[in-house]
Amino acid sequence: MSFNTFGRLLRFTTWGESHGPALGAVVDGCPPRLALSEADIQPFLDKRRPGQSKFTTQRQEADRVRILSGVFEGQTTGTPISLMIENTDQRSKDYGEIAQAYRPGHADYAYDAKYGLRDYRGGGRSSARETAARVAAGAVARLIIPEVRIAAWVCEIGGDAIDRDNFDAAEIGNNPFFCPDPQTAARWEKLVDEARLAGSSLGAVVECEAVGVPAGWGAPLYAKLDSELAAAMMSINAVKGVEIGDGFHAARLTGEQNADPMRPEDGHGGPRFLANHAGGIAGGISTGQPVRVRVAFKPTSSILTPVDSITRAGEATQVRTKGRHDPCVGIRGVPVVEAMMALVLADQKLLQRGQCG
Amino acid sequence: MSFNTFGRLLRFTTWGESHGPALGAVVDGCPPRLALSEADIQPFLDKRRPGQSKFTTQRQEADRVRILSGVFEGQTTGTPISLMIENTDQRSKDYGEIAQAYRPGHADYAYDAKYGLRDYRGGGRSSARETAARVAAGAVARLIIPEVRIAAWVCEIGGDAIDRDNFDAAEIGNNPFFCPDPQTAARWEKLVDEARLAGSSLGAVVECEAVGVPAGWGAPLYAKLDSELAAAMMSINAVKGVEIGDGFHAARLTGEQNADPMRPEDGHGGPRFLANHAGGIAGGISTGQPVRVRVAFKPTSSILTPVDSITRAGEATQVRTKGRHDPCVGIRGVPVVEAMMALVLADQKLLQRGQCG
Amino acid sequence: MSFNTFGRLLRFTTWGESHGPALGAVVDGCPPRLALSEADIQPFLDKRRPGQSKFTTQRQEADRVRILSGVFEGQTTGTPISLMIENTDQRSKDYGEIAQAYRPGHADYAYDAKYGLRDYRGGGRSSARETAARVAAGAVARLIIPEVRIAAWVCEIGGDAIDRDNFDAAEIGNNPFFCPDPQTAARWEKLVDEARLAGSSLGAVVECEAVGVPAGWGAPLYAKLDSELAAAMMSINAVKGVEIGDGFHAARLTGEQNADPMRPEDGHGGPRFLANHAGGIAGGISTGQPVRVRVAFKPTSSILTPVDSITRAGEATQVRTKGRHDPCVGIRGVPVVEAMMALVLADQKLLQRGQCG
Amino acid sequence: MSFNTFGRLLRFTTWGESHGPALGAVVDGCPPRLALSEADIQPFLDKRRPGQSKFTTQRQEADRVRILSGVFEGQTTGTPISLMIENTDQRSKDYGEIAQAYRPGHADYAYDAKYGLRDYRGGGRSSARETAARVAAGAVARLIIPEVRIAAWVCEIGGDAIDRDNFDAAEIGNNPFFCPDPQTAARWEKLVDEARLAGSSLGAVVECEAVGVPAGWGAPLYAKLDSELAAAMMSINAVKGVEIGDGFHAARLTGEQNADPMRPEDGHGGPRFLANHAGGIAGGISTGQPVRVRVAFKPTSSILTPVDSITRAGEATQVRTKGRHDPCVGIRGVPVVEAMMALVLADQKLLQRGQCG
Repeated sequence: MSFNTFGRLLRFTTWGESHGPALGAVVDGCPPRLALSEADIQPFLDKRRPGQSKFTTQRQEADRVRILSGVFEGQTTGTPISLMIENTDQRSKDYGEIAQAYRPGHADYAYDAKYGLRDYRGGGRSSARETAARVAAGAVARLIIPEVRIAAWVCEIGGDAIDRDNFDAAEIGNNPFFCPDPQTAARWEKLVDEARLAGSSLGAVVECEAVGVPAGWGAPLYAKLDSELAAAMMSINAVKGVEIGDGFHAARLTGEQNADPMRPEDGHGGPRFLANHAGGIAGGISTGQPVRVRVAFKPTSSILTPVDSITRAGEATQVRTKGRHDPCVGIRGVPVVEAMMALVLADQKLLQRGQCG
Repeated sequence: MSFNTFGRLLRFTTWGESHGPALGAVVDGCPPRLALSEADIQPFLDKRRPGQSKFTTQRQEADRVRILSGVFEGQTTGTPISLMIENTDQRSKDYGEIAQAYRPGHADYAYDAKYGLRDYRGGGRSSARETAARVAAGAVARLIIPEVRIAAWVCEIGGDAIDRDNFDAAEIGNNPFFCPDPQTAARWEKLVDEARLAGSSLGAVVECEAVGVPAGWGAPLYAKLDSELAAAMMSINAVKGVEIGDGFHAARLTGEQNADPMRPEDGHGGPRFLANHAGGIAGGISTGQPVRVRVAFKPTSSILTPVDSITRAGEATQVRTKGRHDPCVGIRGVPVVEAMMALVLADQKLLQRGQCG
Repeated sequence: MSFNTFGRLLRFTTWGESHGPALGAVVDGCPPRLALSEADIQPFLDKRRPGQSKFTTQRQEADRVRILSGVFEGQTTGTPISLMIENTDQRSKDYGEIAQAYRPGHADYAYDAKYGLRDYRGGGRSSARETAARVAAGAVARLIIPEVRIAAWVCEIGGDAIDRDNFDAAEIGNNPFFCPDPQTAARWEKLVDEARLAGSSLGAVVECEAVGVPAGWGAPLYAKLDSELAAAMMSINAVKGVEIGDGFHAARLTGEQNADPMRPEDGHGGPRFLANHAGGIAGGISTGQPVRVRVAFKPTSSILTPVDSITRAGEATQVRTKGRHDPCVGIRGVPVVEAMMALVLADQKLLQRGQCG
Repeated sequence: MSFNTFGRLLRFTTWGESHGPALGAVVDGCPPRLALSEADIQPFLDKRRPGQSKFTTQRQEADRVRILSGVFEGQTTGTPISLMIENTDQRSKDYGEIAQAYRPGHADYAYDAKYGLRDYRGGGRSSARETAARVAAGAVARLIIPEVRIAAWVCEIGGDAIDRDNFDAAEIGNNPFFCPDPQTAARWEKLVDEARLAGSSLGAVVECEAVGVPAGWGAPLYAKLDSELAAAMMSINAVKGVEIGDGFHAARLTGEQNADPMRPEDGHGGPRFLANHAGGIAGGISTGQPVRVRVAFKPTSSILTPVDSITRAGEATQVRTKGRHDPCVGIRGVPVVEAMMALVLADQKLLQRGQCG
């Protein structure tokens, strides 16, 4: 793992800024002889793509991915897969006036403090646009773990949570919020639209579940499956919290309540668990139960209300972020969370095979 | 970063099982010419040491650390610092009867699924005893960042939270719970004692704050300061959730509520922030505000109540974990959380100096 | 360091095949605020570019580099620098007939044994064309170490070595062989031309010297400066040997002969060394003397003489490699060796600054 | 790979100084369920142990290894294996007088330039005593690759080379030089003894061969098998050169001479090669032929003849290194070279299994 690289055996390195000519990912360590073409990647990018409803940024990006290496005659060769997405809608004039002021909540000040300069065009490297590269890499990772089904959804926006009794996985694709509860989705329509019209923004919670992960993936102690997932999710822009299984709720349970009792055989060779408070991970290693993660996204920092700030010269000012922004950045976080889940699991599958055969 | 190694420039590798002859850490990449002796490390181990009150396990471990390398004439040499702690109280007979059954909530089944065997003596490598090695390594890390003050405390046990209005940092060391609110500490005494007597256990939430971190530590995107902290904290035994700043609460705020406005100069060269919802990190890079992390510990999995389980042979059984266990493992998590904070920050300091001079 | 990534703090990842649409490198960890444009990189690529004399392959590649990220307003931002070179002369028909046979001396059989397939177009990932990406990355590395002057040259072709008494650094650029001895260059003209006309090939030895490396770069024990250089050089296509300082010759000296005596001050703060058998490195750490490396390139494996081989199906065959090949691949290795020297030294400079301030 | 850590999936970290209380290695990533006890490691340490003939240093070290973790009931558990060797003969008075002067040829000056201090007791971390930890780790690595037979020997001392026609592997263990040619061994006896009596020293060349490595281990481009071997060997104290296969000699061959022709089937599923100039590696990946490496050791830097040097204060002085030193450090390099070969190959086996299944 290095600054812009994630993973151990399956590694990807992302590059590119929101307003540069292109961005991309280099995926290294992929097994050979997997069928791969752009068509395997594009649907995931399309899911993340902006401008598809009024609830996401109106920035228009085609987000067409090109495979530049690592695939020959439709198969992965085992060598680095270079994925590139050209930026097509780079209206950097939108950002011109904030070149000299720091946008509160954004990385502007922190980048300047670190590097002594910043790319003020849309946040440069700190833009959520980088997540397109992860989604592309994640699509490759999915091919490595065909035994695993990964799904994520939004379970809460602006404090308004879904009703668990209404959970219907089939509904997730039927609304612009990746919401598994149609009644909640209807409420969110109003909620997010109001925020959008007010130039405000809302936070969200995304849940992700991976079904089919066999027992035995992960490793003590600093490559624990949960530790890797926490790093992966917390590396996504705007994420402020990560839970595995019951997460913070587990801190309110007794040992008896939190136990995941086991009964003989589940028909798949493992025990039948009577509960899954652990979120499918014990001691950093998968148990064979569904792996469950919850991820908190803060509200988009770009809002129309002026916020106190300072200029690079240290003078007081106020910043209103016009541009074209997501009223709730967590919504488009769904395919990104799925991608990171896939990337972590694929890496751990290869690691397990490497060490334990 | 490898399986049992954490860090990038400042790296530590831990080894050892709960019932082996010893455990330890090798700290590599430490700057030279720092004054270091066992006396700099021992107080942190003593803080974590079991058997100091009836609220923690009665296992008696001296936890005396020895420095075996990397220090010459009282100074670090810049070469690997080998730290060793001998295990003195290895009553493995306590564990004998669970050799053939999996303890629910523990890593027993997952380890067996991964490795095809397990060290059943007290959990072997999955034992929280490994955290002693981290605490020792963390004491070295603190020497690298004298400009930073790190403090952690328990803010919630079994769902009973401190009253923020009573927060008094000076109280943290005055009770066996690392509790900054004496009234809450009094309630916890009863709460934890009841759990202990009932052979039950409780979860806890630990908060940690690092004051004095300059702006500019951290890095995009997979070495983000928050991503590193998430990995570090989630790698601790029994941790199920990590929050930076407002964490999950941020998902319930609007952009206006979540903003951290800036005003000119704070007297230390940086801006004065009017709030710290971000927990001192923006875009993965420190802002100069206090770095704040919250960590959820599940209740200790070892309880006296029998829980349904299976044997290695797949037969139904029940497991009661007798042994000597912490009724609330989160309490002794406090020095471990501090150690991981120190290790992450020290590493990021060196990385920042390396890349940006 | 991963499969296609090299370096620790300054890392680069290369991707691309000889006959794909493009190849490139992502350079991560570069310090910010270095002036960088394509014009800083292109001269080094031009030096390596094929088709510039009859002594190198006639394949015509423009080798124009594009910077796709990591530079803003003419300065490095500290974020990943993506460098891309499009392939323009992909006459893959030249290679069609060897799709079913393994070229002896090439990686064809080994790749197939490893991956179960191979990209037979010009060797795919194993092609020396990958070195263009290294040369581009090396040009960035040079900006990090302005205090160091790096020069490489060919000192031997086909067993015909330069005369040390004729060594004139100013001559290196005056002949197509990077030869510092004009008389030897004249002999090589005949030697290489004969090999070319015969469809044969010759090996070569390249020497590289870095002047201005301060004492103190490198690290025990597996990041030793000499160990890093050995890995870097041996990773270049066709390289079979690496020497530091006197190399294998040192094995024939006595301790007295091999000593590098020291006298007080050299005017630059360090001692004055009376010899440099060590090649500027002791204990894996630079001494302040010139760092000297020698690298052996085998003869190009592609020759017109038929060589016994087998087909993928295991049948006996013979392979004559037509294509357009370098009669002496070591010649074009000169800018590659320089690039790898720059990349290793720049990385070690950042590491030293990180650990020791 | 970090400063004192080597490897990717199978990683080992060494620690300890020549005159500290102990030294050791932590081996991480080892597959589980391998039978392992101290008895599997001790013979390799005994082979390297000093004081066994008058041709090696008279320092007496028991070099008894202890396994402190990672083994349970005689089997590896898959968790870190901590190996410790106590130093028993730490006559540091021998070194006292050189505390203020730099020994030429040693790392004294370079360490001081880097770290601003040095452990002058026998070179501290730069002492060849560190190689004991590698030999111990290498013994573990051998268990991972039972299909591979590794043997090393000395082929040249002080410029006096073995006669290839007399090569007899069975003779290697029959003389104190690991020499496969008894006639040469007889000459070396005189040669090394003269050097010893004169307080002088000699260089040596060690060869190592690994038979049974299947085709397909290694990886492009910065984890090439030959690149890993070069890094591994060059990281050994006193090594100044590394060759794979024909090495520098290949630079003097034509393409026709250097070809390794292939004929159908060798009875083991691979082709039959008619030569092995490549040393068993093509394109960084093993071909199934024996892997061959040659390693140049410089003469021991510690000699009785006074050599010009300077003090820490920069004053002219002369240094005579009394102590008890190997007249030819390359001899005891044999088990170290074997260990590094085993460690690299075992790592690559796991990597290959991880990526390619």
